[in-house]
Amino acid sequence: MRRKHLSTTALVEGIQSGNRVILSQAITLVESRKPEDQDQADEVLEAVLADTGKSLRLGITGVPGVGKSTFIEAFGQLLLEKGKKVAVLSIDPTSQRSRGSILGDKTRMEFLSRHPSAFVRPTPSGQTLGGVGSKTRETMLLCEAAGYDAVIIETVGVGQSETLVHGMVDFFLLLMLAGAGDELQGIKKGIMEMADAVVINKADGDNRKAAQRAKTEYKNALHLFPPNPSGWMPEVLTCSALQPMGLEAIWEMLKKHQEKLNANGHFEAKRQKQQVQWFESSFNDLLKSYFFHQPEFKTQYNKLLKLVAEGKSPVRQASKALIQYLGKV
Amino acid sequence: MRRKHLSTTALVEGIQSGNRVILSQAITLVESRKPEDQDQADEVLEAVLADTGKSLRLGITGVPGVGKSTFIEAFGQLLLEKGKKVAVLSIDPTSQRSRGSILGDKTRMEFLSRHPSAFVRPTPSGQTLGGVGSKTRETMLLCEAAGYDAVIIETVGVGQSETLVHGMVDFFLLLMLAGAGDELQGIKKGIMEMADAVVINKADGDNRKAAQRAKTEYKNALHLFPPNPSGWMPEVLTCSALQPMGLEAIWEMLKKHQEKLNANGHFEAKRQKQQVQWFESSFNDLLKSYFFHQPEFKTQYNKLLKLVAEGKSPVRQASKALIQYLGKV
Repeated sequence: MRRKHLSTTALVEGIQSGNRVILSQAITLVESRKPEDQDQADEVLEAVLADTGKSLRLGITGVPGVGKSTFIEAFGQLLLEKGKKVAVLSIDPTSQRSRGSILGDKTRMEFLSRHPSAFVRPTPSGQTLGGVGSKTRETMLLCEAAGYDAVIIETVGVGQSETLVHGMVDFFLLLMLAGAGDELQGIKKGIMEMADAVVINKADGDNRKAAQRAKTEYKNALHLFPPNPSGWMPEVLTCSALQPMGLEAIWEMLKKHQEKLNANGHFEAKRQKQQVQWFESSFNDLLKSYFFHQPEFKTQYNKLLKLVAEGKSPVRQASKALIQYLGKV
Repeated sequence: MRRKHLSTTALVEGIQSGNRVILSQAITLVESRKPEDQDQADEVLEAVLADTGKSLRLGITGVPGVGKSTFIEAFGQLLLEKGKKVAVLSIDPTSQRSRGSILGDKTRMEFLSRHPSAFVRPTPSGQTLGGVGSKTRETMLLCEAAGYDAVIIETVGVGQSETLVHGMVDFFLLLMLAGAGDELQGIKKGIMEMADAVVINKADGDNRKAAQRAKTEYKNALHLFPPNPSGWMPEVLTCSALQPMGLEAIWEMLKKHQEKLNANGHFEAKRQKQQVQWFESSFNDLLKSYFFHQPEFKTQYNKLLKLVAEGKSPVRQASKALIQYLGKV
C-alpha cells in the first residue's frame, strides 16, 4: 500500500511550496526507523535548514480535562485570523502513533484540521535514536520550512515530554483550571517552574469568580519564585476557550515576551542554547547506541547496573570496568 | 611536605575504627587526580562498601546570609546531644578547595569542628571525572564507613550543586528568611520544588511575626505543587538557629519522613534510584572523557558544535559525523 518515496529534491520543493501532503510525507520519513529513510530525511533537513527558525514556537501543557484541544482550536483560529499559518504537533505519550490517534486529533481539532492554513499532526514521544524528542524537533523544523509562522507543540502535563518540549520552544504555557488542588495532583513536579505563563481556562459562567481567585493564588505563588534568566516574569491570565474570551490578551503577552527577549538578546541566546543541548543529547544517545548495539556490551552493562543498584559494587569501579571492557571491544 | 600514603589496609582499618585523621587522608585520596591515588581510593571504597548507607543523608541549601553555618552548628549540636555522630560536607562552588577554605569552614562551625564526634570538611564541587559530584558521594560513603550517623551536605543555593546534592541525600532542606521576595532572587529556579522542607530561619525577636507570615505564604505556595512520588508533602517550619529555637521540631520531622518512607518502601527505592542514576552519569562521563582525551576528537567535536549553534548544520547530521569519526579512531 505504501507509496514510493519522492526524491529528495521533490520533497524539498514540495515543503518549500507549502504542500501539506508532501510535508506529511517528509515527516513520515523523519519518523521512520529505516536507515535509508533516515538518510533521506537528513538530506531533506539539511536542504531546508536555511528556511527554519522563523516561527514562534509555543509549547502548551496541562492535565487531561483542562481543555487543551478546545484552547488550541480557538487560539489557532485567532492566529489564522491574524493571517498566520499554524502548525500543531501533539505529543501523546499514552497512545502509540497510529492512524487511530491521527483521526483522534483530527476530531479533536476539527476546525484547524480542515483549514488550508493549518496543519495538525501527532508526533511520537519517547526515546528515539539520535536524541530524545528529536523527531518532534525535526518535524517542527520541517513545518517552519513549509512556511508555518507558529508551531504549537501540545503535550499532556503528566509525563516526561514537558522538559523536552520546554527545551525546544520559545514560550511554555501551562493551562490550568480554577479550584486548584485536586487537578494539580496530576501535574508533574517542576512543570510549574518551567512555565512562562499560567493560563486558567474555563473562566466562564459560574467559574469566573473561582478563576479570578485562582489567578491571584498563582500570581502570589509565582512571585515566590525567581524570574527567568531572561528577565521574563511568568504571567497569570484567565481565559475561556469555549466562549472564546481572553485569547487576544494571550496573543499580546506572547508578542510582549518576544519583543522583550529580542531586545535583551535572550531570544537568540535561548535558541542557541537549545541547539547546543540538542546536539549534546543527540551525540550522547548515538554514542550509547553505538555501544549498546553490541549484545555483549549490553549484557555487561546490565550486570554491573544490577550490582550497583544492590550496593554490591562501588559505582566508579563498575563504570571503570565498563570502560575497560570497551577498550577490548 | 606530603606524608607517604598509608596502605589500603591501614586506611580501611583506620576508617572503620573512626580515626578522623585517617578518614581525612582517605578523602584526600578520593579527591586526588593522580591515577595511582584513584586506584587506591577505589580499593578503599570497595573494602568499606558494606559499612556504608546507614546514615541519615541530609542536604541543606540556602542563599548566603540565610544563616546556614549557624543553623548547621546548632542542629549538629542537637544531633550530638542525641548521641549521634555528625559529618558536615560543605560544597562551596565559589572557592576552590584550599587550605583557606578549610580554615574558613572551621571558623564557621567552631563547635562542630572541635567536637570529637563531629567531622567538618569542605568538598570540591564541579565536574569531576567519573560522575559529576562523585567526590562528594564517595566522601559521604567514607564518612558512613567511619560511623557517622548523620551526613549533612551543605550547598549554596545559587549554583548547579543543588540538583547534585538532591540526587544523593534522603532529605533536602531549604533554608529561607522571612520577607521573601528580594532574598529569593538569588535562589535558582527549581530548587523550591526539590525541597522536602522549607525552614524559615531567624524567626526570633522582631522577625517572629514576619516569619509566621512567610510560613503561611510558603505553605500556600507549596500546596499548589503536587506531592512527591513518595507521598511526602513538603513541610514549612520556622526556627532560630541563634537562640536556638525550633530545631527539635525539625528533628522530629526528619524522623517522621524516614518512618513514612521506610514504611511505604520509598526510602530504599529512592536510594536504589540514586545509585542507578549515579552509575549512569558516571559511565557517561567516563565514556565522554575516554574520547575527549583524544585531542583530534575534541577539535572535531568543537567544530561541529559551533556549526550547530550557528544553525549551519542539522543536529543529527553533526552527531552522526562525530560517531562516524569515532569509528575511524
